[in-house]
Amino acid sequence: MQAAVTRGGALVVGEVADPTPGSGHVLVRSLAAGICGSDLHALADFAHFTGLMDSVGVPSLDPAADCVFGHEFCAEIIEHGPDTSRALPVGTRVCSVPIIVTTTGVEQIGYSNIYPGALAEHMVLQEMLLLPVPDSVDTDLAALTEPLAVGEHAVGLSGLEPGQPCLVVGCGPVGLAVIAALKGRGHGPVLAADFSPSRRRLAEAFGADAVIDPATESPHERWADFGVATGVMERAGAALLGGAIVDPVIFECVGVPGMLQSLIAEAPPHSRIVVVGVCMQSDSIEPFMAVTKEVEFRFSFGYTGAEFAATLERLGAGVPGADRLVTSVVDRAGAPGAFETLRTPGEHGKILVTPGPPSP
Amino acid sequence: MQAAVTRGGALVVGEVADPTPGSGHVLVRSLAAGICGSDLHALADFAHFTGLMDSVGVPSLDPAADCVFGHEFCAEIIEHGPDTSRALPVGTRVCSVPIIVTTTGVEQIGYSNIYPGALAEHMVLQEMLLLPVPDSVDTDLAALTEPLAVGEHAVGLSGLEPGQPCLVVGCGPVGLAVIAALKGRGHGPVLAADFSPSRRRLAEAFGADAVIDPATESPHERWADFGVATGVMERAGAALLGGAIVDPVIFECVGVPGMLQSLIAEAPPHSRIVVVGVCMQSDSIEPFMAVTKEVEFRFSFGYTGAEFAATLERLGAGVPGADRLVTSVVDRAGAPGAFETLRTPGEHGKILVTPGPPSP
Repeated sequence: MQAAVTRGGALVVGEVADPTPGSGHVLVRSLAAGICGSDLHALADFAHFTGLMDSVGVPSLDPAADCVFGHEFCAEIIEHGPDTSRALPVGTRVCSVPIIVTTTGVEQIGYSNIYPGALAEHMVLQEMLLLPVPDSVDTDLAALTEPLAVGEHAVGLSGLEPGQPCLVVGCGPVGLAVIAALKGRGHGPVLAADFSPSRRRLAEAFGADAVIDPATESPHERWADFGVATGVMERAGAALLGGAIVDPVIFECVGVPGMLQSLIAEAPPHSRIVVVGVCMQSDSIEPFMAVTKEVEFRFSFGYTGAEFAATLERLGAGVPGADRLVTSVVDRAGAPGAFETLRTPGEHGKILVTPGPPSP
Repeated sequence: MQAAVTRGGALVVGEVADPTPGSGHVLVRSLAAGICGSDLHALADFAHFTGLMDSVGVPSLDPAADCVFGHEFCAEIIEHGPDTSRALPVGTRVCSVPIIVTTTGVEQIGYSNIYPGALAEHMVLQEMLLLPVPDSVDTDLAALTEPLAVGEHAVGLSGLEPGQPCLVVGCGPVGLAVIAALKGRGHGPVLAADFSPSRRRLAEAFGADAVIDPATESPHERWADFGVATGVMERAGAALLGGAIVDPVIFECVGVPGMLQSLIAEAPPHSRIVVVGVCMQSDSIEPFMAVTKEVEFRFSFGYTGAEFAATLERLGAGVPGADRLVTSVVDRAGAPGAFETLRTPGEHGKILVTPGPPSP
């Protein structure tokens, strides 16, 4: 079959072996695949990427062997493998948490030498993990389930309370997913900050209550409007006097070195910083400032199966702005160019890859 | 009056001006003063120390002017200033949160160019902040109220639940304060780790359930004994199967660069790391590991007035091991030597400074 395959450090369009559904598997046709920031990192330096995975004991792969990316997808069942219930008929559009559970562990669809991701024509998925896509949800939207689930998880992890003010730093796909989850749960006020005008417009479409251009205004200047004590001594005084204390929650959705320390330095004392952006380099912080300001970091990763399913359900009910997240659709032959484009994302939200012409 | 005073970058014993109690103040005689790690940092590089304070908006002082350290103390009332209720008579032994609240802000006793700390013969304290020391509490023990309150605060901040296993990394005064607070609240099992044999013995005396020498065994090898999933995939599997999940809480009480990353690398996934040790230098972490392991950092600083009072009360009821925390007592003339000794603390717990001979 055809695939956009990572081979020898480059993304190329070519032939790969057709997958064969094993016990409990279904064969599906990829209908739409999103390109994730992790894919960009992996393509830029696959050995570094797999080394990081190894360092935390997450099953990884041989970066020198073929790998077909694509862990954000919507697909269509085309064949049931052995030992399947066939509860969902051929032709059903499905989503799935991008893993294959084996008898010896877990393989990650999209980061595996065995199971191709959705940049291939066909994939195998595990029947027990399939979620049928509601008719009301377009295929392109359904492919956003995975990235939006990341926001659902981060907001769950945040422990945010009703009415607690929050700030989303960075309005790329991760930040927008967080905004969607915040608004879907009725949280707010939600501030959102991004240097890109188009991403700020997307943040507005997703329902952010205030959208800030950090080039012209620090988002931290807004906290006082919501009753947050912004100075260490002011916060201590509020605690001493037993008044109402409002502490902010900040979602870091950029994931580049320097973000954590800039938040330690600029955020109000007692800020809870939920780190959702994945920074792949070493980073430096000033612990003294973090200690005296008593900030808190909650590092957020992935999602649970329940959060993934809840996200697809939420898409069925309608997620404001989600239909605007996809800023470009390319066919499989266009995947290498799309990866190149996203190296400097600029005004882009999510780029989707849809099937190219079928193999001869 | 006499004081061990920080003057021109050195700690010298000499004369300083006698303090005069202002409105709402009492004049006290210092009975015992503990030397804190912050004092050591401040003496080593006072300009760096005050610069850090300035950087977080904590009121600070002129490092070039005289400053008398000593914010951990027990003192005795010798005179009431104007506008005082005199509820506590002359001769009463007292503790106090080491601050003076003024009409324009807060001065820190011990880090002030105006209000001398307890390394001076006399201090002024604020009557409204005084806590009488119960007869059952020796003066030396009462001087431990402040450092022990740091542990009380950290344990409160930790959100530790009954039966949740925890580890205290570093059994100097800060780590021992955490152990005291943990055991005082009935928490455990409490693991404690320190390279120093005498500090490990102190940790035992404070009630740690298991004491580990990190030179011979990683404390993280013990987690499995308490049902903690130590691998990322193992933890994910436990979450998937809906089994009982036991996540650990780790108190970082060392405060040197590299500690945070060593915990990110070695601690189980989903560890909550309460940072109580104050690292005064920049530090480097690997955010990718923190993200994929979903660790959490809660930076802890100081204590509330209520926690301070509760700590003194706890001392009245008896804190196991506390009587062994003071490993040396020197008079004021011995203070410079004690600071020198503590630059390489080795086997030391807390060194107390008691009054030298009165001024002529």
